[in-house]
Amino acid sequence: MNAILPAESVLFVIYLVAIAAEAMSGALAAGRRKMDFFGVAVIAFVTALGGGTIRDLILGRFPIGWTQHPEYVYLVISAGLLTTVVASFMDNLKRVFLVLDSMGLVAFSLIGCSVALKMDYPTVVVIMSGMITGICGGILRDVLCNQVPMVFRRELYASVSLAVCALFLSLRAAGVDTGLNTAISFAAGLTLRLLAIRGRWRLPIFSYQQRWE
Amino acid sequence: MNAILPAESVLFVIYLVAIAAEAMSGALAAGRRKMDFFGVAVIAFVTALGGGTIRDLILGRFPIGWTQHPEYVYLVISAGLLTTVVASFMDNLKRVFLVLDSMGLVAFSLIGCSVALKMDYPTVVVIMSGMITGICGGILRDVLCNQVPMVFRRELYASVSLAVCALFLSLRAAGVDTGLNTAISFAAGLTLRLLAIRGRWRLPIFSYQQRWE
Amino acid sequence: MNAILPAESVLFVIYLVAIAAEAMSGALAAGRRKMDFFGVAVIAFVTALGGGTIRDLILGRFPIGWTQHPEYVYLVISAGLLTTVVASFMDNLKRVFLVLDSMGLVAFSLIGCSVALKMDYPTVVVIMSGMITGICGGILRDVLCNQVPMVFRRELYASVSLAVCALFLSLRAAGVDTGLNTAISFAAGLTLRLLAIRGRWRLPIFSYQQRWE
Repeated sequence: MNAILPAESVLFVIYLVAIAAEAMSGALAAGRRKMDFFGVAVIAFVTALGGGTIRDLILGRFPIGWTQHPEYVYLVISAGLLTTVVASFMDNLKRVFLVLDSMGLVAFSLIGCSVALKMDYPTVVVIMSGMITGICGGILRDVLCNQVPMVFRRELYASVSLAVCALFLSLRAAGVDTGLNTAISFAAGLTLRLLAIRGRWRLPIFSYQQRWE
Repeated sequence: MNAILPAESVLFVIYLVAIAAEAMSGALAAGRRKMDFFGVAVIAFVTALGGGTIRDLILGRFPIGWTQHPEYVYLVISAGLLTTVVASFMDNLKRVFLVLDSMGLVAFSLIGCSVALKMDYPTVVVIMSGMITGICGGILRDVLCNQVPMVFRRELYASVSLAVCALFLSLRAAGVDTGLNTAISFAAGLTLRLLAIRGRWRLPIFSYQQRWE
Repeated sequence: MNAILPAESVLFVIYLVAIAAEAMSGALAAGRRKMDFFGVAVIAFVTALGGGTIRDLILGRFPIGWTQHPEYVYLVISAGLLTTVVASFMDNLKRVFLVLDSMGLVAFSLIGCSVALKMDYPTVVVIMSGMITGICGGILRDVLCNQVPMVFRRELYASVSLAVCALFLSLRAAGVDTGLNTAISFAAGLTLRLLAIRGRWRLPIFSYQQRWE
């Protein structure tokens, strides 16, 4: 990520805040499972950087991002361990935390799209790259904590990622400048996500009981 | 997959039917967990194309298959979402569905073998490539749905994959033409799988209760 | 792994014993879940060679280790299946088994460090490579058996891996010969792990109950 254009610089700062916030959400999940400090660090790491790792693996993009940025590793592990100290104060910060998490979702999605675009993948893969970056960290967190991934059942989350990626690609196809496009897509995605949280918007559920298989 | 030989053309058509069938089995599993439509699409995708993805990762075969075939992605997601509409009628189709699933298992296994053969991997890796392609989609589906993978406990399933791969490699070593070999291996594997379902054949279970570790 | 230096030859033998021991631990876990013989073989394989596989994927090191060493595959699958026969006698061997498992943890960690060092990764990635090799097999085993990974909650385990990697890199930075360094790090790591088992040393637990997320 070369931080040249203002919008991309801002996106990079948001990225750092977001991986810290994701690491904290991972640490809280680990705490609910009564893991030790090492488990907390691993879940924090996986939640924050796992999505990008899976994206890089699937796109065949080596070396994988964080292996060239030790500072990301230190950041997310520090954020995870710090959470064990400040967790008792965090209930008051619920709203701040949800906003940071939402910013992360949108920033991760845009970054994931950019990465796949630079590698000339087809459009559907670019969108999936954005979504994988946005949501796979949370999926890994939930699998390691032995629960059905929340992203499959919660308020609009993956859908926001999809919408952001689609908007970004549409504006790009329409010739909008990348910096402006990034800013618009980010703002629109964040707004959609916050509205979804406030209104408890959900996708329809598919419930199937027959167990014949 | 160059569809030149008739047997390979047929295998390709079977492949398309099979990934659709696997996507539907994934969608039903998601429905049992009351996932939303997005979760259904993800589980459908992972069940149908996850085995090939893991195979390509492990063989170091980039770009990964489906990233060059957006039509596969559209097919499996469509099949998954369609399932939410037709699920209530599917109980009548149980037998059809099991046959499609069995055809998929055998076709995936043969395709997985071919891929590794072309990359000159050792025989045991070729066989494992076939098995990974055949069964890992179902394993990912079950892990994401938070249950012990069925493939480790059900009627002969992975064993069929193993038998198909071994037969294919044996006939190949005996100099049988690839097209004919594919046809024979496919027919034999499908027969074995259907007999196993009908007769509820299972591998012996290993039950171990001591929890000293 | 070129077995030239004595310490590395010894490490290689320990490696073979260790993957067999890890395969047996995987087989026992599969037995607790009443899996069939195929499931036992898969869990044995994944427990023994899964850590190295994930390491190779993340470092972008293709072809992946075991694909070039079919003998490893035969060894771990044999060890896994053998376990189904000898499991009833193994309770008497609990102590032997724990020592083998500990040797494996330390050997895996050192091998993981070496692999990443040869690829010129940054220090934190070298350490993580060692830890991934040491502990990810057990994590995969537990995820496939549908339980929260033990490594996140047990006596010092991952911490031993971390300590071994850190010691190895420190001695290396101090100019200690690789063979001697390997021997010292191995002995120190094994001692630490065995003391941790005997004393039931654990990392502090982070317990967090609030479920507001």
